[in-house]
Amino acid sequence: MQKVQLSVFLPDSFLTETKDLKLKTSKIGIVGRALAVFSVSKVVIYRDTSKNSSCNLNSDKGNLSSDKNRLSRDRSSLDRNYSDGKFISKLLKYMDTPQYLRKRVFPIESDLKHVGILPPLRTPNHPTVDEFDLGQYRQGFTVKRNKKGTFVDIGIDKLVFCKEQLTVNKVFSFKVVKIAKEVIVTPDVPMDRYWGYEVLYSQETLKNSLKLVNHDFVLLATRYGHEVNSIFDDLKSKAINSKSITTLFGGPYSGISENACESIKNSRLDVVDVNTLPDQGTETVRTEEALISTLAILNMMIHG
Amino acid sequence: MQKVQLSVFLPDSFLTETKDLKLKTSKIGIVGRALAVFSVSKVVIYRDTSKNSSCNLNSDKGNLSSDKNRLSRDRSSLDRNYSDGKFISKLLKYMDTPQYLRKRVFPIESDLKHVGILPPLRTPNHPTVDEFDLGQYRQGFTVKRNKKGTFVDIGIDKLVFCKEQLTVNKVFSFKVVKIAKEVIVTPDVPMDRYWGYEVLYSQETLKNSLKLVNHDFVLLATRYGHEVNSIFDDLKSKAINSKSITTLFGGPYSGISENACESIKNSRLDVVDVNTLPDQGTETVRTEEALISTLAILNMMIHG
Repeated sequence: MQKVQLSVFLPDSFLTETKDLKLKTSKIGIVGRALAVFSVSKVVIYRDTSKNSSCNLNSDKGNLSSDKNRLSRDRSSLDRNYSDGKFISKLLKYMDTPQYLRKRVFPIESDLKHVGILPPLRTPNHPTVDEFDLGQYRQGFTVKRNKKGTFVDIGIDKLVFCKEQLTVNKVFSFKVVKIAKEVIVTPDVPMDRYWGYEVLYSQETLKNSLKLVNHDFVLLATRYGHEVNSIFDDLKSKAINSKSITTLFGGPYSGISENACESIKNSRLDVVDVNTLPDQGTETVRTEEALISTLAILNMMIHG
Repeated sequence: MQKVQLSVFLPDSFLTETKDLKLKTSKIGIVGRALAVFSVSKVVIYRDTSKNSSCNLNSDKGNLSSDKNRLSRDRSSLDRNYSDGKFISKLLKYMDTPQYLRKRVFPIESDLKHVGILPPLRTPNHPTVDEFDLGQYRQGFTVKRNKKGTFVDIGIDKLVFCKEQLTVNKVFSFKVVKIAKEVIVTPDVPMDRYWGYEVLYSQETLKNSLKLVNHDFVLLATRYGHEVNSIFDDLKSKAINSKSITTLFGGPYSGISENACESIKNSRLDVVDVNTLPDQGTETVRTEEALISTLAILNMMIHG
C-alpha cells in the first residue's frame, strides 16, 4: 500500500467521440479500472472548454453565418460535455461502490442501462459476503437512525448497528467490532490497504478545479511537455518526496490548451509538464491511453 | 522513429470474460490502438491452454461426473478461445489495414458487424486521399496482372501500375515514383516512420510460438516477476542494447503459467520476468491494462 495520495484530473470531454451509451459505459469502465489498478485516491472531472476539431475546421471560413454556426456548435458541444461530465462522475462512483450497496445508492435510471458490462474493480473495499468477520472493514449505507445510533447495511443478511448518530442515506466506512445477536460496527477506514477512489465533479475549468485537491507536486501530461526520459531522475525524486501527487490530462482534441498550461505552470504549484509517450506511433493519443501510460510510469517511480 | 523491433505475444483467451460481440470488438480496439501508439511491429496471438477459474472451481469436487463436466467445459473453453483467436487476429489486421483497402481485403462477414466502432489508428500507413503525392508511400492492393506488371489500388480515384509481377489479391507497400497520365508505383517500405504492425495467428502454445519472431531480449510480464523498479537499470540497458524486443502477456485468469515461465526462462533466450505493476490496487490486472502499462514503461526506456 503506497503512502502517497494520487489524484487524477480528467476532462468532461473524453467521451466526445463516443456516441453509443454502451460504448460510453465501457470507456468509463476502462478509466475506473485504471484508477483502481494504480490506487488513485481522488478523481476530478473538470469542464473542458476547448473547442473540438470539427468546430475549428469550420471557423476557418470566417464569414458571419459560419461563425454563428460555430458558436452554436461550440455551445452544443459544451452542453454535451456537461451532461457527459455528470454521467462520467456517476458511473465512476458506481464502480467504486461495493456491489451490495449499488441498489441502495443508485436509483434505476436510463443512463445506467449498461452498467452490467462495467468490469469489477476487485479492490479491498469490495469484500464478498463470505469474507464477513470480526475486525473486518466494510463500507455501509446508513438506512435509519434512532436515539441510540444508526442502522447500517453492510451487505450481510441483516442490518447492523452503529452507536453513533450518522447522516442517513449515505455511504461510510466501518469496522466490525462485535458479532453477537446484534452486529456492532464503528466508523473507521483502514490505513493499510487501498480503499477505492473519491469522485469530484467540478463544473469549473481545469485551472479553477485545481484547488479542490491538495498537492505537493503536479504532473501535467501533454505531448508538448518534456520527454519523460529526459527528466526521469528529477521526476522520480519529486514523486518519491511528495505526499500528494496530482496528474492532469487533457481532452481528446486539443489536450490541455497552451493557455491553461502556461497559467498552471505560472501558479505557485510545483508543476512539471511531461510527455509520457515519447515518439508515439499514432497521430493522437486518447485520454484513457495517456492515463494508463502515465500512471504506470508514475507507479513505477513511487515504488522505486 | 525507434530502431528497435517490438513484438507482443497475446493469449487467444483475453476476450474470455466478454460475451457481447460489440464489446469484444471494442476491447480488440483498445489492443490495436496500444500496439500502434507504441509502434509495435509484430503481434502474435498464441493459444492459451490454461484452464479458466470457473473450471478450476468445479474440479474441486473431484467426482467422476464433475470431472467429465470439467473436461467438457475445458474443451469448450479452448474451443471458444480458438474462435476468439481467429477473430482477434482478423480484427487487429482490419485495424492495421488502411481504410481505403478494407472493403477489398475483408469480405462482409457477420463478425465484422461492429467494426464501425473501432478507433482509427492514425498511423503513417493510413494516409488520406488528399495527401497523395509524388514520393509518397502507400499500401496498395494488387487487383490484376498482365505481362508488363500489376494494377494496384492505392486508394486514389483510379488503379495505378507497378512494373513488377506481384501476387494478386494481396496488400503490399509502394512508393509513388511517377504521376503522369498513368501513376507508377514501385514496391517499397519507408524506414523512417512507423508502418503499422503485422499480425501472426499462432495456434500453438506460448512456448511453441516464440520461434515465430526473432528476439534479442524477452520481457515476460507477470505479477510474480521481479518488480520493475528493483531491476530498472538492468532492464533499461537490455532494452537499449537490443535490436528486437519481445513482450509476453498471459491470460485473464492465470497469467502465464508457472510451467510456461520456467520453460521459457530455461530456454536459450535472454528472458527477464517482470512485474510492471508493483503494488496493484486491484486483485487482478486485465491483459489490455498490463499491455499498455508495460509498453509505456518499455517505450520510455527505449527513448532513454
